[in-house]
Amino acid sequence: MSELKGACIFGQSGGPTSVINASAYGVISAALENPNITRVLGAEHGIKGVLNDRLFDMGQEDPAELELLKYTPSSALGSCRYKMKDPDVDDTDYKRILEIFKKYDVRYFFYNGGNDSMDTCNKISKYMQKVGYECRVMGVPKTIDNDLFGTDHCPGFASAAKYIATSCMEVYQDARVYDTGMVCVIEIMGRHAGWLAGAAALATVYGAGPDLVYLPEVDFDMDQFLTDVDRIYKEKGNCMVAVSEGIHYADGSFVSEAKTSATDGFGHAQLGGLAAMLADAVKQKTGAKVRGIELSLLQRCGAHLASETDIEESFMSGKAAVENAAAGITDKMVGFERSYEDGRYVCKTKLLGLTDVANTEKKVPLEWINAAHNGVEKPFIDYVLPLIQGEPKLPKQDSLPRFARLKKVLAK
Amino acid sequence: MSELKGACIFGQSGGPTSVINASAYGVISAALENPNITRVLGAEHGIKGVLNDRLFDMGQEDPAELELLKYTPSSALGSCRYKMKDPDVDDTDYKRILEIFKKYDVRYFFYNGGNDSMDTCNKISKYMQKVGYECRVMGVPKTIDNDLFGTDHCPGFASAAKYIATSCMEVYQDARVYDTGMVCVIEIMGRHAGWLAGAAALATVYGAGPDLVYLPEVDFDMDQFLTDVDRIYKEKGNCMVAVSEGIHYADGSFVSEAKTSATDGFGHAQLGGLAAMLADAVKQKTGAKVRGIELSLLQRCGAHLASETDIEESFMSGKAAVENAAAGITDKMVGFERSYEDGRYVCKTKLLGLTDVANTEKKVPLEWINAAHNGVEKPFIDYVLPLIQGEPKLPKQDSLPRFARLKKVLAK
Repeated sequence: MSELKGACIFGQSGGPTSVINASAYGVISAALENPNITRVLGAEHGIKGVLNDRLFDMGQEDPAELELLKYTPSSALGSCRYKMKDPDVDDTDYKRILEIFKKYDVRYFFYNGGNDSMDTCNKISKYMQKVGYECRVMGVPKTIDNDLFGTDHCPGFASAAKYIATSCMEVYQDARVYDTGMVCVIEIMGRHAGWLAGAAALATVYGAGPDLVYLPEVDFDMDQFLTDVDRIYKEKGNCMVAVSEGIHYADGSFVSEAKTSATDGFGHAQLGGLAAMLADAVKQKTGAKVRGIELSLLQRCGAHLASETDIEESFMSGKAAVENAAAGITDKMVGFERSYEDGRYVCKTKLLGLTDVANTEKKVPLEWINAAHNGVEKPFIDYVLPLIQGEPKLPKQDSLPRFARLKKVLAK
Repeated sequence: MSELKGACIFGQSGGPTSVINASAYGVISAALENPNITRVLGAEHGIKGVLNDRLFDMGQEDPAELELLKYTPSSALGSCRYKMKDPDVDDTDYKRILEIFKKYDVRYFFYNGGNDSMDTCNKISKYMQKVGYECRVMGVPKTIDNDLFGTDHCPGFASAAKYIATSCMEVYQDARVYDTGMVCVIEIMGRHAGWLAGAAALATVYGAGPDLVYLPEVDFDMDQFLTDVDRIYKEKGNCMVAVSEGIHYADGSFVSEAKTSATDGFGHAQLGGLAAMLADAVKQKTGAKVRGIELSLLQRCGAHLASETDIEESFMSGKAAVENAAAGITDKMVGFERSYEDGRYVCKTKLLGLTDVANTEKKVPLEWINAAHNGVEKPFIDYVLPLIQGEPKLPKQDSLPRFARLKKVLAK
């Protein structure tokens, strides 16, 4: 079984991260070296590139440019958010994918993404099994949200966490320079899981960060929030708040979508998002000078603040996908297992069933959130800290980033 | 005249930068070493610390912590925005300052800030001259806005410029990963001068940056803007825009303050600021997916992306202020003069009259802005590029910044 020869397709899917291309480089470089893989194809915009027969011949790229992928943020091949239909209801896409696989003699399929992408990967894997087309399908994990099931953590999370913690430390210095005081609200990504918002607390542990942190794992109470902010602002003269974009009221409705609220009383469209809205609510309650800051895309593409640990692990997960597939494994996602050797953090890969991964979300354990629901406990910090370690040696040109420049030659 | 012995006061004023404390370290370390300066006092919140007799004894700080100021963003002693009255109208504050100067035998006053702070510095200098109190007063420049008169550039500008250019390069990668395309609007500081917004164009020169850049030196035309964006979006499938927060219509009104606009048609309060407003206008015109990103405080406190050149020059300007004052100079601000030796950028200090500096703003020359008023020309790039060079060796603890921790012992 291990002697399967053929081409491979690699695709990137879902929201990018600052290290997703390190996984790409792991897959591509390992595949280019593997004697059983006859050709390495990169799909433009993930599965859409397969459907549209837009496949790049990665063997034609300059090896030095490929290596720069380790330090180039965001999906270099292009991404997509494409929901595959249930093949029992409509198998048009699957037939097309099979046609393309046959056309290029594709026997290896590597798909890099988060929950939804693993669902795509899983569906393709099961379809190929059903129709009896021999093809090894492997998921490569990726998500700043850190919410993939079964893995200790996800490639991309740590670099975003490091960006958030560092930025919070810097903003903390800035947001308290005046004697007039200020309340600063920082909005952080993570619609359903609070891993990233929680990472803001690293800043506080290291001396300069948010006084309050709100995660979507627990219900948000606007009155309690305003009371907390008011108390800290009165005590310290300043207050810094980190909130997940996904915080919601007890009825499940997102705070960011509340157009009208009894506590803040405005009823117009919210262009500026959650941070601006909460800052305005605080201003009305306390009279304090306020500022809302949305970290927006910056937090997920800030490669200059990437964790070297994250880069290396992302690369490792891509490489492991290829090596395991070449050895005969299929229908799995690569995951991470953490251990400590003489107190030193060690990360190894493991394999998870695609079906299990595709349908489950991993949230921050409730016992890692404090009783007041406005901060995280020490186990959360201990969990995140090893992941953000190490400074990458970023290639620069005139002190600006030198990102990979791919030729993207379409395969014939 | 050069043998004036006495204490010195150093204060920080106005909006902080990521390298303002490098200037502080330049002043404090030089003053601590100077035999004529008997005591080094740091004013809490700038001139307010003098008025309130809140002065820290910098000689009591740990030298290693003081050195960390070189890499610690934002005004470590606290800042203020305090407008001094005309002493001919109301000299209460000036009398109080003189009283404090006499109390501590202050013979040297160093004030670190931008235009308004140099006005404060100038007024104090002239008052001391008028009342015959011998005191050497020196301004130390600082502003990310880069708009101080008479100096080639200002400490703090280059690090913010580097942050902006790098962030634009990263966001550029992220904002075009999907096949659906996007228009991304990035809002950059600079109310009256477009130096920082223009710096976003560095990203474009290095392969990945805004297609359009709007500066406040020229009038903004919403219809032309929407036409430009629409054209580029149709051509390229994506469009990235950098705008200065200070862009204004031909009648002088700020675009950010336009609550109602014929082109975008919404009339409610703008919580999210200019980027969100312009993004929304683009969405209504083109139907494109949009995102507005405000770099907010991040751009002026992002010490992890500081320019080493900027750090060294900031330090140099503080040191030069002390050395010149000790040598007998007063009533000046330290400025920079640029030259090229064998093609290599060289920066030396020079001295400017405080009166001249206090009342003039330096804007981007119109000939450095393109004819279409949506970009900058090569001389602008050539001007900025040498300033952003060099990566600082940032002190870190567990891969997070290790900022200076001052004891701030009040002087007796």
